[in-house]
Amino acid sequence: MAKQNIYDNAIFYEGYKKIRDNNINANNLFEIPALFSMMPDLKNKRVLDLGCGFGEHCKRFVENGASKVVGIDISEKMLKVAKEENSDAKITYINMAMEDLAQMKEQFDVVVSSLAFHYVEDFSGVVESIYHILSDNGMFIFSQENPLCTCHTGGNRWTKDENGKKLYLNLANYGVEGERESVWFVDNVKKYHRTFSTIVNTLVETGFSIEKMIEPLPSDEILEKYPEYNDLFHKPDFLLIKMRKINFY
Amino acid sequence: MAKQNIYDNAIFYEGYKKIRDNNINANNLFEIPALFSMMPDLKNKRVLDLGCGFGEHCKRFVENGASKVVGIDISEKMLKVAKEENSDAKITYINMAMEDLAQMKEQFDVVVSSLAFHYVEDFSGVVESIYHILSDNGMFIFSQENPLCTCHTGGNRWTKDENGKKLYLNLANYGVEGERESVWFVDNVKKYHRTFSTIVNTLVETGFSIEKMIEPLPSDEILEKYPEYNDLFHKPDFLLIKMRKINFY
Repeated sequence: MAKQNIYDNAIFYEGYKKIRDNNINANNLFEIPALFSMMPDLKNKRVLDLGCGFGEHCKRFVENGASKVVGIDISEKMLKVAKEENSDAKITYINMAMEDLAQMKEQFDVVVSSLAFHYVEDFSGVVESIYHILSDNGMFIFSQENPLCTCHTGGNRWTKDENGKKLYLNLANYGVEGERESVWFVDNVKKYHRTFSTIVNTLVETGFSIEKMIEPLPSDEILEKYPEYNDLFHKPDFLLIKMRKINFY
Repeated sequence: MAKQNIYDNAIFYEGYKKIRDNNINANNLFEIPALFSMMPDLKNKRVLDLGCGFGEHCKRFVENGASKVVGIDISEKMLKVAKEENSDAKITYINMAMEDLAQMKEQFDVVVSSLAFHYVEDFSGVVESIYHILSDNGMFIFSQENPLCTCHTGGNRWTKDENGKKLYLNLANYGVEGERESVWFVDNVKKYHRTFSTIVNTLVETGFSIEKMIEPLPSDEILEKYPEYNDLFHKPDFLLIKMRKINFY
């Protein structure tokens, strides 16, 4: 199955870098706090970050006590920045697609992935590899775009009133899984839509026990400062799941 | 919290009975097959059916080998039919709200509930009671309206083209949980919307391990006979979850 390396596209990369450089974005306000709220105590833990990008999370895992962190990413451009800006003696960055994870011979206590899985076609293959490199009772935590987002097949995403206020999401094809072509800085960014039930079933059939699920919504404080995020009540942007590897007996 | 007994309303009851008497409906085509596909072997098992209605499922549980079946329902009218049409020496029907389940002193091996939880305000209380009356490793299987349905807050549910074909679901307020007033045969039928993540978290925090989730979609065969069910690809009507009670060690 296809492995997509969109972050090495120069135009995509510059566009992405610009929004990540702006501190007020949905990642910083919603996805990152939710992800870290799910993290276990990392003291002396070995952590693997799939799709580590610029390595900010890897750095934070070390600061939070991890004894060893490996960050993998398919994009050399992203890893170049990671090595420059977020290097540490305890961190190793490896240029590798997460679809090739079966080649990884090390064991980890915690596997994390932030906003990368919706680019992955072979989700069940990646989940299977994660299961095998996790230690007993190891934790697996990931975020991805919410299925209410990934199902989008084109056309206007929203119906708005005459003042431009979003009234509702034009939801179609939630039950039609598979590839979606979208435009994000460049044409033909491929995403893969899976329903809530397919995601859950893939995880539990592999041997994970789901411990928590988050679809982040804005607090009153955030809404007061950034009222535009009221839209998340119609369509949460993210889905996060925390799991534990079960030992079969 | 409120306990709703809409099925004892005469107009609601007659309207409901009419659609259930018609064999071609979404329950028969999608919900019931999915529910029974999740059932474990019932041989010598004690089964509790929450919101058993006319008792058709109770009867089938006995036919499938259950040693004892208890069906509870808040509606006397429904239970009257259950006793007339689906009685059996192994079945006991009890007129009781599922919110009062904590009073039940018996133990069960399997708890089932079909399309009743979206009428229940105190979902976590009911789930807690179910946990306590289940035997070790007991199974809990339920269906409810899909969260993409229960979130509806009024207005047109669909945007259609000039020929009346459904183009997309007008999805709003998915992130706003709580009571919804809807019209189904009578005014003011109360339903309670919960997101996928709230449903999952309530179950796992109580001590259930999720084994499977189904959002039923039509097969090619069904679509050929009943093309109108193509709409389910935009909005699945049902959500079903199968769980096991975990033993804390």
